[in-house]
Amino acid sequence: MYYIGLDVGGTTFKAGVVDESGKILVKDAMPTGIERPYQEIIADMAALCKKVAADAGLGMEQIASIGVGVPGMFNNRTGRIPFCTNLGWHDIPFVEEMKKHLDTPVYGDNDATVAGLAEYIAGVSAGIDNSVFITLGTGVGGGIIINGRPYSGAHGCGSEIGHIILKMDGEMCTCGNEGCFERYASATAIIREAKKAVAEHPESTIMEKCGGDAEKINAKIVIDAAKEGDETAVKVFNGYARALAHGIVSIINMIDPEVIVLGGGVSAAGEFLLEAVRRELAPIIFFKTMPYARIELAQLGNDAGIIGAAMLGRK
Amino acid sequence: MYYIGLDVGGTTFKAGVVDESGKILVKDAMPTGIERPYQEIIADMAALCKKVAADAGLGMEQIASIGVGVPGMFNNRTGRIPFCTNLGWHDIPFVEEMKKHLDTPVYGDNDATVAGLAEYIAGVSAGIDNSVFITLGTGVGGGIIINGRPYSGAHGCGSEIGHIILKMDGEMCTCGNEGCFERYASATAIIREAKKAVAEHPESTIMEKCGGDAEKINAKIVIDAAKEGDETAVKVFNGYARALAHGIVSIINMIDPEVIVLGGGVSAAGEFLLEAVRRELAPIIFFKTMPYARIELAQLGNDAGIIGAAMLGRK
Repeated sequence: MYYIGLDVGGTTFKAGVVDESGKILVKDAMPTGIERPYQEIIADMAALCKKVAADAGLGMEQIASIGVGVPGMFNNRTGRIPFCTNLGWHDIPFVEEMKKHLDTPVYGDNDATVAGLAEYIAGVSAGIDNSVFITLGTGVGGGIIINGRPYSGAHGCGSEIGHIILKMDGEMCTCGNEGCFERYASATAIIREAKKAVAEHPESTIMEKCGGDAEKINAKIVIDAAKEGDETAVKVFNGYARALAHGIVSIINMIDPEVIVLGGGVSAAGEFLLEAVRRELAPIIFFKTMPYARIELAQLGNDAGIIGAAMLGRK
Repeated sequence: MYYIGLDVGGTTFKAGVVDESGKILVKDAMPTGIERPYQEIIADMAALCKKVAADAGLGMEQIASIGVGVPGMFNNRTGRIPFCTNLGWHDIPFVEEMKKHLDTPVYGDNDATVAGLAEYIAGVSAGIDNSVFITLGTGVGGGIIINGRPYSGAHGCGSEIGHIILKMDGEMCTCGNEGCFERYASATAIIREAKKAVAEHPESTIMEKCGGDAEKINAKIVIDAAKEGDETAVKVFNGYARALAHGIVSIINMIDPEVIVLGGGVSAAGEFLLEAVRRELAPIIFFKTMPYARIELAQLGNDAGIIGAAMLGRK
C-alpha cells in the first residue's frame, strides 16, 4: 500500500506519495492562499492529493490513508483542527471537509510531531522507540515518539517543548508567559542576543556580514561568524548552546528518550552545533554515570513533513 | 492471585500483600539497618515477604510476583539497582540476591513512579491512562504513567521531575545543577523562603509558631500561618504555589497528562494548596481554551509505596 502526506504551511502546502518504507515517490506543492475560506483551501488539498496519486500512477484505492501535518493542533478523535494560527484556523472540521472530496481515511498531527515520526521511520532515529525531535527555527517545536508512536498527550496539547519553562520570570514569550525554552533556543534568540552583543562590540565580524545593519542579523550570520572564531559571535553561540542544553536536560530528566533529534533552521549549523550542545550537556546531566540520550541532527530536512504525515496512517 | 509490595526506605522497609484490586491485606515493617552488607538487608526483605504472605494465610506459590519501590533507580532488564543513595547502594544485584531466598518473580522501580502507579490503580487517578505524580517533600520526585504503564524512559532515568530546570542559573541544587524545579517546589524551598521572609518580618506568626527560633521553621508551620492569614506566610506560600505552577506548566506542555497528582509532605496542606496551584496555573496555561490536566491530591498516603510496588508485576 501507499500513503499520502500533506505538509501544511502558511505560504504553501505540499503533498507526496510515500511507500511503506517512508520513501517519497512523487511530490508537489500549491500556494495555501490563506485569505480564502477554509473550504476552498481544503478542496485544493484534496485535489493535490489526487494529483500526486495520479502522477505516481496510482488510483486513490491504492492509497491506504492521507495524513496531514499542521503548524497547530489536530484532534484525531473529532477530525477537527482546534488551532492552526498561521492559517487563521480555529476549530475547522478538517476531516469532514476532506471527505466531501475523497473516500480515503484522514489522520493528522502537529507538524513537529510529524517530523519526529518521519525521522523515526526513515531518518536518524529510525527504529528507536523513544525519541524527541526539536525544531530550532523562528520558534521551537517538539515531537515526541514513545513506544514507537507519536505522543501528543491526553488532550493533544503535549510536546509543546518550546513552551516548557526554562527561566521563570525570564524573557517575555509570544505565548504570554515568561521564560519559555523557545525564548532561548530559537533562531530568534540568537538574533536577539547577537544584536545586544554587537551594540557593545561593533568590531565583531557579525557587523561586516550584515553590511553594518544590525537589523539584518540572522542566525546563519552569527553561526558563520562563530565558526570563523569571531569572539563576540562565539560568545553568543555558546550562550545559545548552553540554554539549549539546559532545555534538553529538562527533556532528559522528564522523558529520558534514547535520541534527541535537532531539526529546523538552526540545525543547519551541523556538527558545530552538535559539538557545542554535547559539550554543554555533559556537565549538567543528572545521572552522570548512566547512559543518556544521544544528540543527533535530523536527516530528512524539508521532506520530513510529507513523510511523517503520510506515515500517520501506517499501522 | 496476590502480589507483594516492598517499600524501601533508609530507616525501615515495609512489605504488604496486595490483591488484584490494589487492596492491602496484610502489612509489616522492619528496620533497614543500612550499615549492614546488602546481602543481609535483602535476606531480611525476603524473610519479611514470606512473613506477610504467611500472615495473610497464603503460600508463596499464591504470590504472583514481588515488586520493590526504591528511593533510587531499578533496572528491570538486569535486575540490578544502579543507584539507591539513601541506602548507599550502587549497582546491587537485587533480583539475583532475592532469588537466593525466593522463587517468585521480582520487579522494581523508583519509589515516586511506584506511588504514581498506586494512585493509578487504586487512588485518585484510578483508570486514567496518562498521569503524572509529583511528591512534594524534602525534595521533589516524579512518577509518570503513560498508556497505563509506569514510564521510566529509555535508560530508566526518566520522571526525575525534581530536576527539570525551572530557572536556569537559579538556586544551587544538591544535584550540582542550578535552578532545578526541586529548589522551588520542595518543602525545603518553603523553609528557605520563610527564613528569608521572617528576617525582614519578625512580626510574622511564623516566628511565634517556631518558638522564636527560625531554625525550627518547617513547611507545616509556614502553611498553617498562611492558612491563618499571616501576611508574610501568605506571600511565601503564594510564591511557592507560583513556582509549583510553573513547573506544572512544563509538565503539561511536554506530556499533557490527564491528571497531575500532588503527594508528599507538602500535599498535607490539602485544598489550600490545590486552590493556590490551580489559581496560579490558569493564567499561564499555553492553550487557554483547551482542557488541561486536573490537579488533584494523592489519596493513598503512605500505603502508595506498598500498593504500587506490588502492582508492578500485575499484567
